[in-house]
Amino acid sequence: MKIVLDGQGGDYPEQAVLGAIQAVEKHKDLEIVICGKESEITQVLANNYKGNKITVCDCSEVITNDDVPTIAVREKKDSSMVKALRMAKEDSSIDGVVSSGNTGALLTASLFIAKRIKGISRPCLAPSLPTAVDGKCFVLVDCGANADCKPINLQHFAIMGSCYVESLFGVQNPTVAILSNGQEKGKGNELVKETYPILEGTKSINFVGNVEARDILSGDYDVVVCDGFSGNVALKTIEGTALCVMKMIKDSIKNGSLLQKIGGLLIKPAVRKLKSTMDVNEQAGGTVLGVDGIIVKAHGSSKQASICRCIEQAMLLINNNIVQKIKENLSGLEENDNQEK
Amino acid sequence: MKIVLDGQGGDYPEQAVLGAIQAVEKHKDLEIVICGKESEITQVLANNYKGNKITVCDCSEVITNDDVPTIAVREKKDSSMVKALRMAKEDSSIDGVVSSGNTGALLTASLFIAKRIKGISRPCLAPSLPTAVDGKCFVLVDCGANADCKPINLQHFAIMGSCYVESLFGVQNPTVAILSNGQEKGKGNELVKETYPILEGTKSINFVGNVEARDILSGDYDVVVCDGFSGNVALKTIEGTALCVMKMIKDSIKNGSLLQKIGGLLIKPAVRKLKSTMDVNEQAGGTVLGVDGIIVKAHGSSKQASICRCIEQAMLLINNNIVQKIKENLSGLEENDNQEK
Repeated sequence: MKIVLDGQGGDYPEQAVLGAIQAVEKHKDLEIVICGKESEITQVLANNYKGNKITVCDCSEVITNDDVPTIAVREKKDSSMVKALRMAKEDSSIDGVVSSGNTGALLTASLFIAKRIKGISRPCLAPSLPTAVDGKCFVLVDCGANADCKPINLQHFAIMGSCYVESLFGVQNPTVAILSNGQEKGKGNELVKETYPILEGTKSINFVGNVEARDILSGDYDVVVCDGFSGNVALKTIEGTALCVMKMIKDSIKNGSLLQKIGGLLIKPAVRKLKSTMDVNEQAGGTVLGVDGIIVKAHGSSKQASICRCIEQAMLLINNNIVQKIKENLSGLEENDNQEK
Repeated sequence: MKIVLDGQGGDYPEQAVLGAIQAVEKHKDLEIVICGKESEITQVLANNYKGNKITVCDCSEVITNDDVPTIAVREKKDSSMVKALRMAKEDSSIDGVVSSGNTGALLTASLFIAKRIKGISRPCLAPSLPTAVDGKCFVLVDCGANADCKPINLQHFAIMGSCYVESLFGVQNPTVAILSNGQEKGKGNELVKETYPILEGTKSINFVGNVEARDILSGDYDVVVCDGFSGNVALKTIEGTALCVMKMIKDSIKNGSLLQKIGGLLIKPAVRKLKSTMDVNEQAGGTVLGVDGIIVKAHGSSKQASICRCIEQAMLLINNNIVQKIKENLSGLEENDNQEK
């Protein structure tokens, strides 16, 4: 298996190389091509790696977080991100891409270079998020790629999210809910109300109805479907609230009695574990769903372990043939639609 | 000052009466009328109150959480909620209403009975939420009354939210931000992009641009404006995440070493304080903004202290003449609009 890594897009290019080394040392059948500044990458490799499973593709440009996605993808043709995606598209020996670069640019480049799966008008970004049930994650689709959506987009997110959860976590017949402002059928904005019956009629998914934002972390749902604006609000509210709650506990202990301060010291390992559970950087990457290729988005501040995990995530999706799975479920949809007409 | 309390809508009617008693004992110039089952209320009063500041208005019906708002408000004319609102509308000696009943029904009844302020097409529900800064709250408008909104609705929410924060917390020139999926100008869904320049041009508010959901709890913003669907997602994600994080810490301590368990016991007061900060029931009530009257919504599970706080919140809004303030800011808006044409 061969994966191409955009080695320049994130905050720590050296860590990306170290993550690649960790991955090839762990998985004997894995090869990695790193796109980025050759001299720098070669230096890190020389100091840390003796094998021959990593090659380098020199790129003179970098897409930064300040770049406007569409312009950057069009104009920075020699950037590590554009070259990584182009290589994956053109070289049939390459199975997938991992990048920690500018999210908007990665989505744009995925559309322009990897191209959409036939039938999908809006690819989406699917992150997996922790729940209150230890070790269980759920997938939020879309979480930011498409701020304004139509019901058919949400139907596609639901189908792709189901395939994704099956491939990534091995969950059979995953539950799919639509994010709404009330659990009862009939609640929602216009988009949710229009989408609900469409999801009810989609045979390839296990649709269980509305879910309120309060319950998305309960562990009861595998896939939560929403437009990218609401998904972004939910995702970032989770992040902000977790940080806020931890700060509140810290402040409260700091300003508390001596015994509370001692208690605070004693529970530090528990808080550290929680921090790592809630930290996106420690979690799996997001995946661009709906394009004709495996493209995993690592967090911009990913370090070695996180890059390695994202490479492993790409491997899992490749092994489980998620693109093919999505295509099959979509074609089933079209046949059903045609039969119903 | 005279306030009417819907004594039957919440989960604990007896607690509502006790909350009213607490309020009149604390505020000598306050009178309260409690709408509800006279025999039950009289019983609680007989056992707990000797004064003459509380009167009872007998109501034979209750609007429950299972009722469909529009039907309930139309048909349950003798319900405690409908009677309380009607009394406030018809009896000029009554200054405001507090109810812990069905939120949808309260919004519907507010529209039908209190009526909209001229110029406001969509009243909204404004809760105040805690932030990472100790003691500082912010207001999220709308948080659920209007699932689908137009830019002009959001402009009204911004103006009303500003007046509200000034009246409730005494904040001068409060900062107003619009909830978006990116902080930069230009980010957002269609609604946000259309609303942004309108808020920029609204002279009566201190508009500071987009805010990402991650930052709404930072304490840097006084008013966060959004459509009721996104607001509901943010509000309930905060609630769900706070619960989830606290459960994770608890689990982690429970499954941790003996020292961690001892630490967990020692920090209990800190966690209890946090729980009360994050608990909507302990917080101030939400207020229906945009109707011609003071209507405070207490949480359905409110107990004595929380009901008393909501009554005090209504008193503050009455004293600060918030309805008049909103009217003035709206008329300013119309004049500006006319001048600009």
